[in-house]
Amino acid sequence: MTEQTKKALDTVREVLALQAKYQHACNVLNYDMETICPEQGMEAQGEVASFLSNEAFKLQKDEKFIEAAETLYANREELDEFDRVQAVQLHRDYLRTKNITPEKQMEFSLVYNKAFVDWTAARKASDFSLFADSLEAVDKVGKESIALREEDPEEKGYSVFDKMLNDYERGMISSRLDETFERCKEVLVPLLQKIMKSGKTIRTDFLSREVTDEQQKRMSDYLLELMGFDFKRGAYTTSEHPFTSGMARDDIRVTTHYYPTMFLSSMYSIIHEGGHALFEQLQPGENYDHFIEYYKTLGIHESVSRFYENRIGRSRAFVHLIYPKVCEIFPQVMGDVSEEELYLALNLVEPSLIRTEADEFTYTLHIIIRYEIEKEIVAGTLPVRDVQRRWNEKYKEYLGIEPSNDREGVLQDVHWTSGFGYFPTYAIGNMYNAMYYNRMKNEIDVEGAIEKGDFATVNNWMKENVFKKADRLAPGEWIKDITGREFTPEDFLTYITEKYSEIYGLEG
Amino acid sequence: MTEQTKKALDTVREVLALQAKYQHACNVLNYDMETICPEQGMEAQGEVASFLSNEAFKLQKDEKFIEAAETLYANREELDEFDRVQAVQLHRDYLRTKNITPEKQMEFSLVYNKAFVDWTAARKASDFSLFADSLEAVDKVGKESIALREEDPEEKGYSVFDKMLNDYERGMISSRLDETFERCKEVLVPLLQKIMKSGKTIRTDFLSREVTDEQQKRMSDYLLELMGFDFKRGAYTTSEHPFTSGMARDDIRVTTHYYPTMFLSSMYSIIHEGGHALFEQLQPGENYDHFIEYYKTLGIHESVSRFYENRIGRSRAFVHLIYPKVCEIFPQVMGDVSEEELYLALNLVEPSLIRTEADEFTYTLHIIIRYEIEKEIVAGTLPVRDVQRRWNEKYKEYLGIEPSNDREGVLQDVHWTSGFGYFPTYAIGNMYNAMYYNRMKNEIDVEGAIEKGDFATVNNWMKENVFKKADRLAPGEWIKDITGREFTPEDFLTYITEKYSEIYGLEG
Repeated sequence: MTEQTKKALDTVREVLALQAKYQHACNVLNYDMETICPEQGMEAQGEVASFLSNEAFKLQKDEKFIEAAETLYANREELDEFDRVQAVQLHRDYLRTKNITPEKQMEFSLVYNKAFVDWTAARKASDFSLFADSLEAVDKVGKESIALREEDPEEKGYSVFDKMLNDYERGMISSRLDETFERCKEVLVPLLQKIMKSGKTIRTDFLSREVTDEQQKRMSDYLLELMGFDFKRGAYTTSEHPFTSGMARDDIRVTTHYYPTMFLSSMYSIIHEGGHALFEQLQPGENYDHFIEYYKTLGIHESVSRFYENRIGRSRAFVHLIYPKVCEIFPQVMGDVSEEELYLALNLVEPSLIRTEADEFTYTLHIIIRYEIEKEIVAGTLPVRDVQRRWNEKYKEYLGIEPSNDREGVLQDVHWTSGFGYFPTYAIGNMYNAMYYNRMKNEIDVEGAIEKGDFATVNNWMKENVFKKADRLAPGEWIKDITGREFTPEDFLTYITEKYSEIYGLEG
Repeated sequence: MTEQTKKALDTVREVLALQAKYQHACNVLNYDMETICPEQGMEAQGEVASFLSNEAFKLQKDEKFIEAAETLYANREELDEFDRVQAVQLHRDYLRTKNITPEKQMEFSLVYNKAFVDWTAARKASDFSLFADSLEAVDKVGKESIALREEDPEEKGYSVFDKMLNDYERGMISSRLDETFERCKEVLVPLLQKIMKSGKTIRTDFLSREVTDEQQKRMSDYLLELMGFDFKRGAYTTSEHPFTSGMARDDIRVTTHYYPTMFLSSMYSIIHEGGHALFEQLQPGENYDHFIEYYKTLGIHESVSRFYENRIGRSRAFVHLIYPKVCEIFPQVMGDVSEEELYLALNLVEPSLIRTEADEFTYTLHIIIRYEIEKEIVAGTLPVRDVQRRWNEKYKEYLGIEPSNDREGVLQDVHWTSGFGYFPTYAIGNMYNAMYYNRMKNEIDVEGAIEKGDFATVNNWMKENVFKKADRLAPGEWIKDITGREFTPEDFLTYITEKYSEIYGLEG
């Protein structure tokens, strides 16, 4: 390494170490706000978090830092693999922000803040027209931000919408997604119709039987312990919406939520978040030494949480494993419920209006609807005033049901208040994990291990194959590194088709 | 106000506002570490808290800030009452730190850190000799720090020990404490002997009956609600040692601890911490506007928490109020326990070796022992090697019992690892509240209100009389402002004598 590169590396590392401290503090403040901070304390704490986050941001805007980071990028071939990832990422960030003045940044923030306020009010009134102007403004500033972006060779030939997508799931652009989602619809829409007509009835009466918080806490402890969550390096509590947050190398926090009449909800929340947490707890320590521990994409992260939640958590092997414990902890629920009935209830397919409550089967269709609509908005082929109508048409077409109001329709998700391109990451995760599951099952006896409660075998495979390079590779390279194949939805569609054909007794 | 003062005030306020943000973040990080942070996450989070705390400290060491603060002090007659308190306090701090270089400060810190490490090891080995050298070093740096202190006119004629005491409970110097504690011993030691010989037996068998966390949580909710704790402006959870921490004007946090076989422990912890919290929740908002909300002394704060814990919480009226609820929440404990038996158990007098577990009666004697010993150490009349012997002698003399090892003797408290002068604040609190209770009961029907569960009447009186000026007045002025009288232990001694003579059937 040349002296110049070494000096630049020192400068960059010093700033990143400082930023990590501010970030750690912000993460704790946010975790606190989501879990225990009282109602009237939120505003002051939010201000403190903004202040610290701004201190961190200022460091990154410092000219000396930018110069050092650009030097690193220019000399990236001299760096080790981890530092090179950092140099590339800092350069990408720089291209995206260099032409955006603080005044412009403030202007953008105001639009997004107003969109959030308007969305909240519109949702409360269940009236999309109150949000329409803001949605239009969000589209406008999204495009303006992209127009100000310094040309990035990586994005050569990308459309505006591709660039939006690229910010969330690098390389997963619209031509690829169009193909993927068309294929999903081709398989899933007719299959759903067959399922609905199958005449199979699945018992659901016990799902709403009452349980206590204490019981749900015991179950959460059991499930996290079982999965291999390291309680010395992590903790959990409750919040309105379950989430995972990494404070530091040895401190990964998750949350869950206890509903008195939905005992499965907290169980599968904790498995889902526990999956995110295992990913963090089992990532290479070098990620932290090089400050690249946050570079996993959302799609990659979601592939892991859904691997644990769905591929493992809703499998026959897992249900067989936990059934006795479920009976022991929730005797008043499970007294007259068989293992098979629990398995079937966990895999009930039921078209519904709310994405966050959707089952494994229909979830992808919810995402496709959002993707298709945002793509049209950005392309200018769907006037914002028609978004609500289009939403309802698509629910009818793909899921066979229609919202009776905007709150359970187009206004249900907050995501569009901060731009477009995020939703697909939720669906892609399932496709990634279907691909690596198929390799995993050739190498280890997944179901055999799970049935015995041997998560270590599965976790070790995940650690070596899935987790190890997740912060170093773009999603396309990463999935190819694991499976030797290009990204495809076929593994997922085959899995879904086989599993649900079996459950609903459909012909092969 | 002159232009110069106005400018100085702006500068000071700007820095204090920034410091308050850092302090808020540190308080949240610390609360998190005490309540949920996993074992292996502690170190990293401690480093982040130190970093932020140091950022705040740097602001205070800035020359422009010091100049502005000193200008304010010089022109303090131009300021409003709140800003004047701030100016005086900043000047006091300045006199204490101006001659202490960062290197000297570091040297002191190392001594205190080593003392903590040695104390921990000594306590583990239950061997005072392992801590003796560090205790001597703590005495030495304490004196060095005082010697470096810029002459403060307020401390004219003060001994070194007086100056140490003055840092914790302003104006409460040794001549006053000697007199106070001599008088306490004169009354309490013979009275304790009479109690021990009274032959009265108090039922304690039910105190160790098993309860669940869930039950204790219900009880904690009930008690905080009852006391008037504002849950929109505060929250609670569990920690190893219960404590209270103010994050912001509208965010006061407390903690408690659930022991399965000590149900009274969490009840009286929550009442004690709830008392601290009410003090914070009901203080004037102006304190926050002027950044003086932390200027209550420890003795003043402790007077309030012990007022709620002991004067209210262990009174017949309160026991009458809560008895039905205690029976309802802990049926397996209370099935065969009468209201009178609960009252008596709450007021059991039993000399014990551990201060933190002492009852209301013997607590003061534990403090007096520590005070007398630290006074002798500072005076140089008690060689450190003899501290353990002196400790055991005094326990024998005042409480009639003797430690069988150092862990339950001289090594039980952490306080001496950071210097001398802290302990008396714990005993003085009871004397303050006895004085203001005597005025309160002339103005409102305290017992009548409590029996009805009407805490608002009591809290309002406390707010107007006790809380209002607690951050603006030195303790001596404050107690005189409330009661019209000079500080005295007589009210406390009369209360104790009457209450326990009645309970133990002693002659008047």
